[in-house]
Amino acid sequence: MKFKVGDIAQYLSGTVAGDSQKEVENIAAIERASEGDLTFLSNPKYESFLYTTQASAVIVSQDLELKQPVSCVLIKVKDPYSSFTMVLEMVEQSITPRYEGIESPSFIHEDAQVGEDVYVGAFAYIGKGAVIGDRAKIFPNCYVGEGATIGSDSILLPGAAVHHSVQIGNHCTLHHGAVIGAEGFGFAPQADGSYRRTPQLGTVILEDYVSVGANTTIDRATFDATVIKKGVKLDNLVQIAHNCTVGEHTVMAAQVGVAGSAHIGAKCMLGGQVGVSGHINIADGSKVVPQSGIMSSIEAEGQSWMGSPIVESKQHFRITAAMRRLPDLIKQVRALEKKLEQATGG
Amino acid sequence: MKFKVGDIAQYLSGTVAGDSQKEVENIAAIERASEGDLTFLSNPKYESFLYTTQASAVIVSQDLELKQPVSCVLIKVKDPYSSFTMVLEMVEQSITPRYEGIESPSFIHEDAQVGEDVYVGAFAYIGKGAVIGDRAKIFPNCYVGEGATIGSDSILLPGAAVHHSVQIGNHCTLHHGAVIGAEGFGFAPQADGSYRRTPQLGTVILEDYVSVGANTTIDRATFDATVIKKGVKLDNLVQIAHNCTVGEHTVMAAQVGVAGSAHIGAKCMLGGQVGVSGHINIADGSKVVPQSGIMSSIEAEGQSWMGSPIVESKQHFRITAAMRRLPDLIKQVRALEKKLEQATGG
Amino acid sequence: MKFKVGDIAQYLSGTVAGDSQKEVENIAAIERASEGDLTFLSNPKYESFLYTTQASAVIVSQDLELKQPVSCVLIKVKDPYSSFTMVLEMVEQSITPRYEGIESPSFIHEDAQVGEDVYVGAFAYIGKGAVIGDRAKIFPNCYVGEGATIGSDSILLPGAAVHHSVQIGNHCTLHHGAVIGAEGFGFAPQADGSYRRTPQLGTVILEDYVSVGANTTIDRATFDATVIKKGVKLDNLVQIAHNCTVGEHTVMAAQVGVAGSAHIGAKCMLGGQVGVSGHINIADGSKVVPQSGIMSSIEAEGQSWMGSPIVESKQHFRITAAMRRLPDLIKQVRALEKKLEQATGG
Repeated sequence: MKFKVGDIAQYLSGTVAGDSQKEVENIAAIERASEGDLTFLSNPKYESFLYTTQASAVIVSQDLELKQPVSCVLIKVKDPYSSFTMVLEMVEQSITPRYEGIESPSFIHEDAQVGEDVYVGAFAYIGKGAVIGDRAKIFPNCYVGEGATIGSDSILLPGAAVHHSVQIGNHCTLHHGAVIGAEGFGFAPQADGSYRRTPQLGTVILEDYVSVGANTTIDRATFDATVIKKGVKLDNLVQIAHNCTVGEHTVMAAQVGVAGSAHIGAKCMLGGQVGVSGHINIADGSKVVPQSGIMSSIEAEGQSWMGSPIVESKQHFRITAAMRRLPDLIKQVRALEKKLEQATGG
Repeated sequence: MKFKVGDIAQYLSGTVAGDSQKEVENIAAIERASEGDLTFLSNPKYESFLYTTQASAVIVSQDLELKQPVSCVLIKVKDPYSSFTMVLEMVEQSITPRYEGIESPSFIHEDAQVGEDVYVGAFAYIGKGAVIGDRAKIFPNCYVGEGATIGSDSILLPGAAVHHSVQIGNHCTLHHGAVIGAEGFGFAPQADGSYRRTPQLGTVILEDYVSVGANTTIDRATFDATVIKKGVKLDNLVQIAHNCTVGEHTVMAAQVGVAGSAHIGAKCMLGGQVGVSGHINIADGSKVVPQSGIMSSIEAEGQSWMGSPIVESKQHFRITAAMRRLPDLIKQVRALEKKLEQATGG
Repeated sequence: MKFKVGDIAQYLSGTVAGDSQKEVENIAAIERASEGDLTFLSNPKYESFLYTTQASAVIVSQDLELKQPVSCVLIKVKDPYSSFTMVLEMVEQSITPRYEGIESPSFIHEDAQVGEDVYVGAFAYIGKGAVIGDRAKIFPNCYVGEGATIGSDSILLPGAAVHHSVQIGNHCTLHHGAVIGAEGFGFAPQADGSYRRTPQLGTVILEDYVSVGANTTIDRATFDATVIKKGVKLDNLVQIAHNCTVGEHTVMAAQVGVAGSAHIGAKCMLGGQVGVSGHINIADGSKVVPQSGIMSSIEAEGQSWMGSPIVESKQHFRITAAMRRLPDLIKQVRALEKKLEQATGG
């Protein structure tokens, strides 16, 4: 791809300082950019790179006051970061392969319903009674079970699976190997120490604009549904057990595990490898540091938490700092005991 | 599905109090049930819901003495929880899609042996010399490697893989993306800092009634076999490394990781995200709290463990409670030092 | 397989003590070996088994001085462990199934380029413009995206995926369900609390001799590339986020998670379930104990680390030991306070 700086500025409703005929053909970070690259400056702490960068053009804030001369062309906009995202989106349009039509062999049950402009890759399986919305993309080796629904404009990357009766909203993305609707882990202990499987008759509902990472698993409910609300973003290798709900616009980093019947509020942020116990509630806006363990409900909204089991973050920092002084503290106490013994004559 | 209350009572060898002709068509939790729902009461702490529920019928203990009048029909049985599980099983029979026959295209090697009443989904692969037992179900996109054996009545959900020579017992369930028999992680360090792969010539044996969660991985042994004994239940995204054994009726929650050559006893319960070091033994009946790290062998049977590295649970609670007081303790010691200095005149 | 002891000794450039015509047909650990087995003795602490083993033949060091008579044939070599690995390699050659040719149905785009002596399993998908090197093996249900490159002698086990434009070097192994090049987890928070996806236009590069475990995920960069250098070995269920680099010959055990833009040095060893925060650097040769959390950069090379957040291992042992004494310490301090009060008259 090659773009003129002037055309990019126009697309971003910005202005050009320098040669608007200059062409860029790659995108790079400001500290590593070279001739022909377009980059951006959003975080002020990177401003020094602006005066040394080899980039051909840099998207900057219209409010930026230059402290030195620059050798690159500037594209001045209101919000450099979101303008840069717009450029990424434009470039993506131009470089991403097109996926369209029904490849062969694929398996589409005669009682399945497939919308318009749908892509179905080779070796994809669409079961009886499944419904695929308009413009959905079902990549190779995907599995859509009996009676499952895929909303319009949703994407199932290769090897993603949506099991029977599961409902996926519009504009959702399921990455490679994501498994939606495997059976919940329900086994009742028997007198002889063995376990009897409890049938899992519920389903999973993903509302619109949900993104599910590669090899992430979301189990179907025992009855009712495991519900992932609008706009939730889950990273790779996350586990959501049966009967959970995850509130709107909550994000979870990779390898988070959520046990059964946990209810996580809206706009929460869970760091990587966080664990959430079953049957608890997490208040809206909770922020949890990576590797923390949430063993009981969080009732205060919008707080930051750390540790396993978690405590409020500021307290955790104090405890962690104190722990490092613990070996010395033991010596201090021993010294005190000795001194006091001497002082009091034992 | 629609069932008459009287028919359900008969199936459960129970009795009806109320209109046995009443029909139910859904299943719900007692606190959320509405008209047309069947539910159950097992845990006494939910008894208050019995008097307010909108459910059409409730399965209760035959020993229950009503404290108030109820508006629902009662089905009185000996053990409400296991009766309810029986109902779930009956409903499952009636609503679960049937999977039968050999779908096309699938790949069944001419030297593979496929039993009676087997389901083979489209795009499933059954290699040379593989043996598939009667009534087994091999869903789409599954892989059964050369010489692997699948016992009768076992189920491989879509995308599950059983690699060459692996033996799966009867009545096992492998959920979506479970990988049985990938190569163990064996590399010998070389003088130049690189690694030389150690061939993994062993296999994996799953005994009967084993359940393996979605995207869980069980590696083949270097020689001999990684063995998962009868009745073991593994949740999603669990890792079992090469040469391990897992004892009968042990259960592991999601994201547990077990390193190579660990031997885990029977009837253990490992919480989510627990880690087990290699080359250690865990005694029968051990219970381990989520996120704990087991770094050395557990010799006492039937104990409860917590922490990373683990200590006995009661001790862990004391330590955790003490840790929260640590910042204050440091201040106390400092105050003591000062006071003692003053008292003794420095 | 059946081998004569004399032939094995010749293959290993070793000498035989005993009957060189004796045949072995299995491999076993020295403590469990029986008639017909070949085993080895490398670790001196197992020497006692040499005098009691039922094995037919044992590979030993040429420097070993027998303390008792033995009933087995000895194969004397310079380095028993690497000789044994050579035997495993020889046996593997003879027992591993051959995979060759193009099975049907598979999907190979007419614009893909497939080298010589390549295996393509049924239901494998090779997209437009993809390049498959000589002697590569692409097992059933694999996905090779548009424009992706697979080096010569590389192996994609069933269900492995290499997404569009990703480059895999020579002699790499991707185990079952490994996902290389799924989209990085990039979302920009919006004013209303929702998130806007940041396109991920970069790629992933795996250099030569990289091994990637089953269901492990390596995400594509936002721009540039996520880079896994020569000889890196990743176990199962590992997560490598976008824009990371992993240095030569670094190994990671199962379920390690590495957040975005982390740079991990060469020859590091990360234990199972370790977490690495984003945007940090880890020095060459760092060794990190399982379940540790690396929250900030490690600058000193070749050190050993533990804990979450990590501290240097020796310090961590001291702290952990001290923690177990903490409940008692609190009592000691309370006693001191009381004693001092009495001594000073309050």
